[in-house]
Parts: sequence; C-alpha cells; structure tokens
Amino acid sequence: MKTDIEISQNANLEHITKVANQIGIENEDLEQYGNYKAKVDYSDADIPANHKLILVTSINPTAAGEGKTTLTIGLGDAFKHINKKCAIALREPSLGPVMGIKGGATGGGYAQVAPMEDINLFFTGDFSALTEAHNTLSALIDNHIQHGNKLNLDPRQITWKRVLDINDRELRQVVIGLGGRTSGTPRQDGFDITVASELMAILCLSKNLSDLKQRISKILIGYTYDKQPVTVKDLGVTGALALLLKDALKPNLVQTLEHTPAFVHGGPFANIAHGCNSILATKAALKSADYTITEAGFGADLGGEKFLDITAPKIGKMPDSVVIVATVRALKLNGGVSKDELDKENVTALKKGADNLGRHIENMKQYGKPVVVAINKFVSDTPSEIQALKDYISEHNVKGILADVWAKGGAGATELASELVNTCDQKAEFKPLYNQDDDILDKLTKIVTNIYGGNKVELSGKAQRQLKNYRKRGWNKLPICVAKNQYSFTDDAKKLGAPNDFTIHVREFQPKLGAGFIVALTGKVLTMPGLPSHPAALDMDIDNDGKITGLF
Amino acid sequence: MKTDIEISQNANLEHITKVANQIGIENEDLEQYGNYKAKVDYSDADIPANHKLILVTSINPTAAGEGKTTLTIGLGDAFKHINKKCAIALREPSLGPVMGIKGGATGGGYAQVAPMEDINLFFTGDFSALTEAHNTLSALIDNHIQHGNKLNLDPRQITWKRVLDINDRELRQVVIGLGGRTSGTPRQDGFDITVASELMAILCLSKNLSDLKQRISKILIGYTYDKQPVTVKDLGVTGALALLLKDALKPNLVQTLEHTPAFVHGGPFANIAHGCNSILATKAALKSADYTITEAGFGADLGGEKFLDITAPKIGKMPDSVVIVATVRALKLNGGVSKDELDKENVTALKKGADNLGRHIENMKQYGKPVVVAINKFVSDTPSEIQALKDYISEHNVKGILADVWAKGGAGATELASELVNTCDQKAEFKPLYNQDDDILDKLTKIVTNIYGGNKVELSGKAQRQLKNYRKRGWNKLPICVAKNQYSFTDDAKKLGAPNDFTIHVREFQPKLGAGFIVALTGKVLTMPGLPSHPAALDMDIDNDGKITGLF
Repeated sequence: MKTDIEISQNANLEHITKVANQIGIENEDLEQYGNYKAKVDYSDADIPANHKLILVTSINPTAAGEGKTTLTIGLGDAFKHINKKCAIALREPSLGPVMGIKGGATGGGYAQVAPMEDINLFFTGDFSALTEAHNTLSALIDNHIQHGNKLNLDPRQITWKRVLDINDRELRQVVIGLGGRTSGTPRQDGFDITVASELMAILCLSKNLSDLKQRISKILIGYTYDKQPVTVKDLGVTGALALLLKDALKPNLVQTLEHTPAFVHGGPFANIAHGCNSILATKAALKSADYTITEAGFGADLGGEKFLDITAPKIGKMPDSVVIVATVRALKLNGGVSKDELDKENVTALKKGADNLGRHIENMKQYGKPVVVAINKFVSDTPSEIQALKDYISEHNVKGILADVWAKGGAGATELASELVNTCDQKAEFKPLYNQDDDILDKLTKIVTNIYGGNKVELSGKAQRQLKNYRKRGWNKLPICVAKNQYSFTDDAKKLGAPNDFTIHVREFQPKLGAGFIVALTGKVLTMPGLPSHPAALDMDIDNDGKITGLF
Repeated sequence: MKTDIEISQNANLEHITKVANQIGIENEDLEQYGNYKAKVDYSDADIPANHKLILVTSINPTAAGEGKTTLTIGLGDAFKHINKKCAIALREPSLGPVMGIKGGATGGGYAQVAPMEDINLFFTGDFSALTEAHNTLSALIDNHIQHGNKLNLDPRQITWKRVLDINDRELRQVVIGLGGRTSGTPRQDGFDITVASELMAILCLSKNLSDLKQRISKILIGYTYDKQPVTVKDLGVTGALALLLKDALKPNLVQTLEHTPAFVHGGPFANIAHGCNSILATKAALKSADYTITEAGFGADLGGEKFLDITAPKIGKMPDSVVIVATVRALKLNGGVSKDELDKENVTALKKGADNLGRHIENMKQYGKPVVVAINKFVSDTPSEIQALKDYISEHNVKGILADVWAKGGAGATELASELVNTCDQKAEFKPLYNQDDDILDKLTKIVTNIYGGNKVELSGKAQRQLKNYRKRGWNKLPICVAKNQYSFTDDAKKLGAPNDFTIHVREFQPKLGAGFIVALTGKVLTMPGLPSHPAALDMDIDNDGKITGLF
C-alpha cells in the first residue's frame, strides 16, 4: 500500500494556470509560485446569489482520527463525478505540529491537495510573514519603551506576546530584556504558536487591504501605567505591519489529486483561535464555482460554532448545508473502547459513543440549515457497526451517508455530493445562536448551555475583574471565541462522549480588538504546544536528489 | 528627483524567463516566483576556465554611505554597454535592519536590482526558512532534555541559541523554560539575528544538498555534563533540518533595472559572520556569464578578507580582479570632518582620511591579484577633491576610476568595466594570507597584523581556555572568521582612518563546525542589533491599492 507522500509524488498535476482558467480565473489575476501553486488577487469578490456554500465539521476529534480534511477534499472531487463545478477552501498547515506528530493537513490516500510537501512546509510564506509581522510589532513595542516610552506603556502590562511557528514549550514563559541598560527592560513574556497570533485571525477575517489595516490599527498591545489601553495605532506602525502582510493576504490556489481547485489560506487553530480558513479564500471559491466546500477546525463545538457565529457573518453568506464527519472508530473510542481494541467489532460501545455525534447533530440543527452526516469509512468497520450508526443517525432525522474517499477519491463520495445538491436547494432560514449585541457573558453562557451541553460558566477572579473592565470600555458586545481543548465538550480533555451537568471554567479573557472578538481561555488549554518524546522530525529525511521521506 | 522606490516601481522589467534564457538557463531549471523572481536549480555547476570573477569590496563603511552595492550593480550593467556578458552575485537583505534604519540592500538611483519591495521584504522565503530551521533545532534540543535527556546534555552548556530576522535588543539575553515541570528546563539563552545563524553560513558555503547535510550534521549544539561535544548528528535531526532548507538552498535570480541577471542569495553579515552571498549563486553566475561581479560585505578588512580566505577557496576560483569602492565623502569623514560639514570642499581632510583607503589597497594587493579603485561619485564632490583622490591612489600604483552609476546606471561605469576587462586578462598568482593548517591563533595574528595593521591579539581568559580546548580536539586548524565592528580597522568603532599600534581583544571563540570555521568575537560586537529611536518602520505604509511608501 502506498503512503500519502508516495501517492502525492506520483500524481499527475495540472499546471496551476490551467486549474485557475477552468474556474474563470485569468492569468493576470494569478501570481505563480512554481508550476503548481499561485496566489490569487481577488479581494472584494462578488458572490453570485445561486452559488452554494457547504460547511464540513465533525464530532470531537480523537486519537483514532476522524479524517475531516480528507473527507472535505474527497467530497470536493465527488462533485466533479456528478458533473457539478466545485471549489474547496481549506486552512494551511502549521509547521510546528508537522515537526511534532505525524499527520500533515493535506488530506490522505486518494483525497489530497498537492503538492503536499510544499503545502506542509513553507508553502507560499504566509505563516513566515505572520511570524515576522507579529515579532516586528513586539520589537517595536520594547524599542518604544527603550527610547523614552512616550506612551507611558507599563512593561508589566504588555499583552502582546511573541510567536514562532514551532512547538516549543521551552518558550511558553520567559524573562526577556536581561543584560543591562543597553539590552532592554527586564520583564516577563512568552511565546505562542503563530496560528494563535491575533494577526492570523485578522488575516483570516479581513475583506481587503483596507480592512486589514483598519483591524491592525485596533490591536491592543498593552496598558499604560494609568491602565489606559494602548493600540497599534498609538504606536504608529499600522502601515509597516500591513506592508509585511501584503502578499500573505492573498489566497493561495492549489489543486486536489483530481484537479479540483482548492484555496488553501490562513490557519488559526480552532482550539485556541477561530479555526477557519480566510474569508478571502472562501469568497474566491464562492465566486468561481457553483459549490464551495469549506472546513472548520476540530469538532462542531469549536470550529463549527465559530464558523457560524464569527466567520460566516463576515463572509456575508451562511452555509447552505452542514456536513458532520463521523467515524465508527472515533465513536467507539468515545464509547470507552481503548485505542488498541478499535479493530474489534463493538456495536455496544459504538452506540454509547454515538451520543457525541448526536449532540453535534442537534447543535448544528439549531442553526436552521440542513445537516448531513458523512460516515468516513475505515477498513476495520463492520457491516453491523455501519448499520447501527446509520440507525442512530436516522433517529435524529438526518441522513447518514457512507463515504470512502481515502481509498477511492471523489468516486467514494458521489452519494454524499448528490444528497448535498438536494439539501442546498432547500429553503431554510439561518438562526443565529446569539444576538451580536448580547453581553459576552450571555454569549458565552449560550455557547456553554446550547452547544457544549454544560450547566454554567464559572469565571476566575481575574476573568470577573476583566469582564467588569470590558463593560466599562464597551468591549462586552463583541463575539466570543472560546479557547478550549478539542477532545471533549467540557474543558477537561478526558471527558469523552456527551457529558452532562458540567461547568466551564474561564481562567482569563483576552481582548482581540483587531480580530474583533474576545477570547475566553478555559481549562488548561495551551497557546504554545510542545513536541512529543519521539517527534516526527526524527524520521524525516531528504536524499541527495531532493526526494523527501518521513513527511506525512 | 525620484526616490529609489519610485524609480524601481516605474521600471520596465523583463519576464524572468527571458532574463534567464539570455544567459543559457532553460525554463526547466527555473522555478518562478511571480513574473520577476525565480529559483535556479544549479548545484555542482561547472565553471568554464575563461570566465572571470571580480570581487567588489570597499573602504570601511561610514555614516556617509559608500554605495558599494549600488556600484556593484551599476558595474554589472556597464559590461553590457561595452558588449560583454555579465552576471551579478549579491547577498539578500535582512529584514531586521530594513525595519530599523533607512537603506535597503538593492542598490540605489539607476543602479538597482528589482523588484526592490519583494527583495527587501520576504523575497523567496530563504531567511524565513533559515529562521524556522534554526529554531526547530532549538526546540528539538530542549525537547530532548525534557524527555529524559539520553545524550546527557548540560543545560548550562547549550551553545545553540535561537534567532529571529528582527532587530530586537530585548531578546539578547533571556531566561527560558519557566513555568514548572511541563514547560521545560529553566536556563539562560539568547536570540541572535538570523543572518548570524550558523545555518546561514552553511547555506552560503554548501556546494549541494549532500554537502548541506554533511555540514548540518557537524553543527555543535552544546556539551554533555562530562564536557563532551554534542552535534546535530547525535540528536538525529540532520534530515529534518535539510528538508526545511531544500528550497532556500537554490539561488534566486532577479534582474537589474537594465536587465542584467543578478543572483541574489544568502546574506550573512560581514561583521558577525563571513559576509558573502552563497557560493552556489556565485557559481551559477560564473557558469552563465563571461564576467561575474560579486560583492563582499562591509569593508575589505571584513568581507574582503573573508571572501579571499574562506569563501573563494570553496568556490574553487579566486577573483581575477578586486575593486575597492571609495567615496570622497566617506574619506573626508575618516579624515575628521563631521557629518554636517561633508558638503564643503576639504582637500586636507580628504588626504588625511585617504589613509584608510591606502591600507585597504595594500591589503588587497597582498593577495597578488590586480586591484582597481572605483571612486563612487556624489553630487557634492569637487574637481579638486576628485583630483586629489586620484593622485593619492596613483601613489599606491593602482588606478582610481570615477564612476557615476547612481545617476547614470551602467553608462556611468563603462571606463571602470573596460579597465577590469584588461586587468582580468593579466596573469597574476593568488597568494593566500595564511596556510589552511596554521593554528587559529597564527591565522588570527596574520589577519590582525597584515590586514588590520594592529600589533597583536589579546585573548580573554575564556578565549585562552577555549583555544587550549580546541587544540586538544583538533579544531584549531579551521579558518578563522573575525566578528568585529565594521567602521574601524580596530575593535573600537570610533577609531577611524588608519590607526596604528593597537591590540585586538578577543572576548570569546565560537566553534562553527558545520560552517567549518571558528568565529572570534572581538570588542563589543553584538550578534543581535537593536532598533533606533525612530525606526524606519514608523514611516512605512501601503495604500488600499497595495502601493508601498517609506521603503528605501
């Protein structure tokens, strides 16, 4: 059996100009990066009213892998098999995790976007530009303090940390500015992973260059000794930061192994950020194809909720259908089966774990749009297990459709694609979860009770003080972006399935005034991951002819 | 008068494939990055024996600006005016200084490489890849310690620091790994600027992918508790790091405003590293054109010496001529004139300051190859000053030729180009400054006495202990790379002109076993610069149509 990278390396890709031309993108709107990657200059794209948007989300991810990206890509290819024009919009992978745990973000088997080595490494440099822009702002802040501190910034209250696109736990908490007067002001600081940067969120939510600048100018960098907020605008460096992001703002175009166009752009994690690709990428796809498939990170409780409450309103178009990806294996794991026992048939555990899926189905149905479950097939699934799962799904009055894109590519998801063509034509009103001008505590409570299935929200002392402060400043009407572990509906990663009667603990809020939302940090969620004891980097190699191994 | 960026934005560039084809590079050897940039896959290029190499170096740089890069570019263009085929090899700019002090590294006036915005910002991502690879190694080192530390690495003796391509004094000295057991091991660390990374030196000195891997494997990362050296090979991550640098290793091709091909690749600073573009870029230029002009960083005491002693032997070709760039203004400054008075004629100060040039001429003559002085014309130069300078140069038995490329482009340096055609045909034996198997202290002493004009070298206690240690380990036969301020022959930046009777103080050595040299840190030279009180970033902007201002 071929590995993902072998399948990708043997693929016959089309020249990127051909892929672009097929969906009406002219060469003058393309900036080529080699033969198979391009940036597209497509800000302020108009979306034809009859073009459809499909959101792919999933159950809570598990160590068993639910294959959401693979399904998204295969589904995109399936539309071609039923003679419909389709484009895909996806997030870019972060290099930190690529070096850590095997598993890139370009799909798998015969459902991949390509060239996978490039996309999983530096691609077109977007994350590098974000890292550089973020840390340039950090340097400019400390440099301002060094040269007289006209703004009266309090070094103890700088909220703008530093970032690297690397899993590096050693940099989570640091002391900087040591070495005496000529080497800065000693203070506490920390590094986040680049995908957690507010600039990443801003890049993904900006409609155009002017919107990008507007958002950058509003970024909160810290407070004065008098506790007054200080922004990028106050520091006077909006232009320099926008300039560093000028190319990163343009969506990247690549293709699937079956030549379906894929806009792969932006990549905030859904556990610590809003978790969706850029709205410019989704809009470029919507403009150019009749059907656009986009994916939101992690489960429907995180990426799904954030797409519907934060991102879609900014695109100006709600999804016409929602697909929830589930696998027999992941649900068995939710039902208490250990990882080693997943290959054995276990209908009882599956039925128990399926409650995780059930809650996600009901959650997505709340928003008013048609919901379909995609059962992503694995070799170990037995007919009784698949039947039991389909029965469970029917009880929730939605369709569960088997898809096998890993082995068959687009041909493995034609039934799912046909069903979505039907559901997208249904008239259905979008029902928002909360009103945009609810107080953030009300918004948060609605997410916790109506989506997670918990009882209540508990704010730490710090979070309570922050909330009071935000109400005074008028920041309390912003959308809320919950930072929570992805494995559980609760803030404890070990509680699988569909737990009830729990509390969500908010340890602190972070105002992301440029992105336009307030982050609520819950439980122990970390904004800088670490590497495992055997990082994937140890198994990577490149031979003298440039052939890569060990990248998955 | 138009600014550099305006001249560049109004230039009619040729498509990069046309530029490449003119010098025999086929489309299949090119990877396009947009229409005006490309990477060239040209490792192990053979250099035809009759192709000539010209090294451009200069007097000690001053705040007045000596315009070495501008001269190099204009000289490249001048060869076309005298019907000779020429290519240029240059370093890539570092973004840190671009954000700090006005002055990119793409030339000026009508002697520029283009597109200047791209080259001065992220270009083709080489520096981002180096930053990522460098810090990935850092994370892997600390991760190894975190997960049991099988190699017995001493956290107090990790020599591999972290890097960013940012001028950020606040990160020079830091304490990392705070926050308890799950967030690493507390230890001292620091950030250098990316151009000071050993990986930058390795990239610039590698002949091909196999050589790159070999060099990476030899990098010293620290010592065990038993004081035994530990390398990247011991850590087992050579392949992953080489993989991250696979594209960065390929030279970038751009063009001058007059369409002369320019290979712009790699950029170690000459004050803290070896200061020359990649040998792959120089070899690509040498393969494809009859004349190659390459530039070495800062003055002939730093970049010039390092090119001749470290880089050229690895290219396998010594320069056929050496050009020293001098300006009337910079020499007046060396002669004691203050910056505000430079516009006034002052032949006396010029003659006094010219001793700086005199020493550089004699230094370069030692190496046995023909030397020519290029007087880079400024509007304020008076006829008497230019005549006095020409007379001074004649006393040293070399030619001084006026060039005016800033205002006239290639047309301003045809006399210089014609003279170089003659000198490159002269038979001249290269005389190395030192023998490759001299002890590093002997090599250092020869550099200090024969190039800087000092009396002796003084080693700190630490440096003495290191030297003893290196002799034991057999590292003492490597070439030496002096880290010294660029403004003075001495290790005190304030001593201009041509001082005598001074001592060079080595505060510590750094073994760069992958690059294959030992760095000697002298005086107060810093490996992480800071930003000035009014950083250039404050004046940068990009309008809603993407038009950039404030980038010079």
